[in-house]
Amino acid sequence: MTSQGQRKPTAEGVARAAAKLAGFLPETPLLELDIRGTTVWCKAECLQPIGAFKIRGAWHRLSDLSDEEKARGVVGVSSGNHAQGVAWAARRLGIRAAIVMPVDAPAVKLANTRTLGAEVVLYDRPGGEDRDTVAARLCEERGATLVHAFADPWVIEGQGSTGLELAAQMERRGIGAPTRIVTPCGGGGLAAGLALACPDAAIVPVEPEGWDDVCRSLAAGEIVPVADPAFPTACDALQTPATRPINFEVLKARVPFGLSVTPAEVRAAQRLAFAQLRLVVEPGGAAALAAALAGKVSLDGRTVIVLSGGNTDAAAFAEVLASAD
Amino acid sequence: MTSQGQRKPTAEGVARAAAKLAGFLPETPLLELDIRGTTVWCKAECLQPIGAFKIRGAWHRLSDLSDEEKARGVVGVSSGNHAQGVAWAARRLGIRAAIVMPVDAPAVKLANTRTLGAEVVLYDRPGGEDRDTVAARLCEERGATLVHAFADPWVIEGQGSTGLELAAQMERRGIGAPTRIVTPCGGGGLAAGLALACPDAAIVPVEPEGWDDVCRSLAAGEIVPVADPAFPTACDALQTPATRPINFEVLKARVPFGLSVTPAEVRAAQRLAFAQLRLVVEPGGAAALAAALAGKVSLDGRTVIVLSGGNTDAAAFAEVLASAD
Repeated sequence: MTSQGQRKPTAEGVARAAAKLAGFLPETPLLELDIRGTTVWCKAECLQPIGAFKIRGAWHRLSDLSDEEKARGVVGVSSGNHAQGVAWAARRLGIRAAIVMPVDAPAVKLANTRTLGAEVVLYDRPGGEDRDTVAARLCEERGATLVHAFADPWVIEGQGSTGLELAAQMERRGIGAPTRIVTPCGGGGLAAGLALACPDAAIVPVEPEGWDDVCRSLAAGEIVPVADPAFPTACDALQTPATRPINFEVLKARVPFGLSVTPAEVRAAQRLAFAQLRLVVEPGGAAALAAALAGKVSLDGRTVIVLSGGNTDAAAFAEVLASAD
Repeated sequence: MTSQGQRKPTAEGVARAAAKLAGFLPETPLLELDIRGTTVWCKAECLQPIGAFKIRGAWHRLSDLSDEEKARGVVGVSSGNHAQGVAWAARRLGIRAAIVMPVDAPAVKLANTRTLGAEVVLYDRPGGEDRDTVAARLCEERGATLVHAFADPWVIEGQGSTGLELAAQMERRGIGAPTRIVTPCGGGGLAAGLALACPDAAIVPVEPEGWDDVCRSLAAGEIVPVADPAFPTACDALQTPATRPINFEVLKARVPFGLSVTPAEVRAAQRLAFAQLRLVVEPGGAAALAAALAGKVSLDGRTVIVLSGGNTDAAAFAEVLASAD
C-alpha cells in the first residue's frame, strides 16, 4: 500500500489533471437554467461516460501510478460512482481493480462496476462494518494501492478539473468568471478540488439532511462526524460519516459554511432536471440544485450548479417522478 | 402570408444557418455508446434549450425575416417541439408568435410553449381537423408568416446544421467523418437537412410503426401518405401524415430506404438512454436509437444516432421505466 495523503493537493495539480483529461474526455455541457428569473449554469457531470465526475480523480490518480504500482493493482472504496470511475480508468490502463462497495448500493452502480471489469468486494454498510478496514486488508494482502474516494491528493485535484473546465466554458461564452459554485458534497473531494481550481469563486457545499458532516465541521472549525451514521437518505453518493483532514484543510480556508437539503427538496430538483434539462440526475447529484431551488443560496448570472451524477435505479426514479411533494 | 417552398434548401444555406447558430447556441454533446461491441455516437439534441433540435430551423427562419415580416408576426404548426422552437426564437427576436397545436399534445409541450410567450391555438387532431387550414386562416387574418414544421427551406437548412456540428465534433475528436446518420423522422425536415449537410454519409430515417410515410414514399418513389392517420403512437413528434415535395425531393435523391420501429423497441431505447446516457429522451426522439438497438441498421465506429428530443410527461416516462418489455 503506497502512502496516502502525505502531499497536499495543489492548484498546479488541478491544472495538470485538467490537461491530462482534456486529451480524451470531452467537456460536459454547461446548461442554462432560469431559477426565479435568474439565469444559472448547470454543469452536467452526470453526462460523463460513467455518469459522474468521479472519472476525473480516478484517471488522475491511476495514470500517475508507477509501472510497479500498476502491476500490483488498485483497491477503491465507494458507494458506486467512484467505483465506476476507478474501474473505467483501470480498464483503460490495464490495471487490476477491486472495489469495496456497500451491499445496499443501488443495483445499477453494482452492475455497472462489474460490467467495467472490476472485482466487487461487498461490505455490510447497514450492519456497521467498516469499509476502510476491509479495504486496508485487501491492500495488505495484494500490495495494491488504495484509491480513496475523496481523501487523496490526486483524487481532489482530478475532481477540481471540473472547475477549470466550467470556468473556461463560461469565459468562451462571454459569461465571465463564476462567482459561486454550488456543489453536492460527500467527503469533500469535489468541493476541495473546486476550491483549488477557482480561487475567486465562493464554494457552497450542499449535503443531505442527516449527512451534514462538512456543514458541522465548518461550523465547529474542526472535523465533526455525522450525528447518526444509520440515518436514512436517498443520497447514497453523499453518505460520508466524516470528512478527512486533507479535504478539511482546503475547505476551512475557503468555505465559510455548508448547506443541507431535505429529501423533498432533492426530489423536486430531480423532477426539475427531468422536465427542464432532460437530464437524469441521481438524488445525491441533485443536492446543489435542490438548495438553489429551495432558495437556500443566493444566485446571480454567474452562479454554477454542479449536477454531479446520474446513476439511479429506474424504479427509484419513476417513484420520484410520480411523487407530488 | 409569404410564399413558402419556392426556393430549394441548399448546402450553402445549411452552412449559413450553422454559422448563425454557432454564435450563441452551444454545441450539444456527442455521447459515446457501446452497442453489442460497436462504439456509436449519440447526438444529444434533447439537450437544446427547448429540449429538441427544432430550435435550429426556427431560428434560421425567423432571423431571416424582413423587419416588415417580423412586425406582422409568425404562425407555427406543431405537435410541440417546433412550437417551442418558434416560440423561443420569436421571443428572442421580439416577434409575435401563434402556434397551432393539437389538443392531445403532451401537457409539458403545451405548457412550455405558453411559458415561452407564444399564443397557443388548439385544433382537434383526434377529430380529424386539418391543422394547415387552421394555420392558413390565421396567417390570412394577421398577414403573418407561416413557419412550417418541416416543409420550409429555412427550416430544413436550420435542422441540417445538426449535421455540420456533429461532423465537426467527430473531426476534432479524431473519430473521422460520419459514415451513417440514423435519425428520427417525422415529415423529413431533419433528415433532408442532414442529407444536405453530410453528402458523404448514409442517411437512415426512422419512423414509428403506422407513421411510416417517408418509408413508404421512398419505397414507392413518390409521396405516399400513412395508411391510417388515426393509428395510435407514443411518438407524437413523428406523427406526420405525409412528407412534402420540398423534403421528398432531397430525400429520394440520397436515401434508398427508411426503417420503422415498434412501440416496444422505442421504450427499450428510452430505458437504455436513461440508464447508460442519463438522458431523458421522448418516444419520437428515441426512434433512431430504437432501430439501432433492435439490430435493424448496421453500425460501425463512425455511425451517429440522433436523439432528437426530450419533452415527455413525467407520468408517461415513469410508465416507460416501469415497463419490462
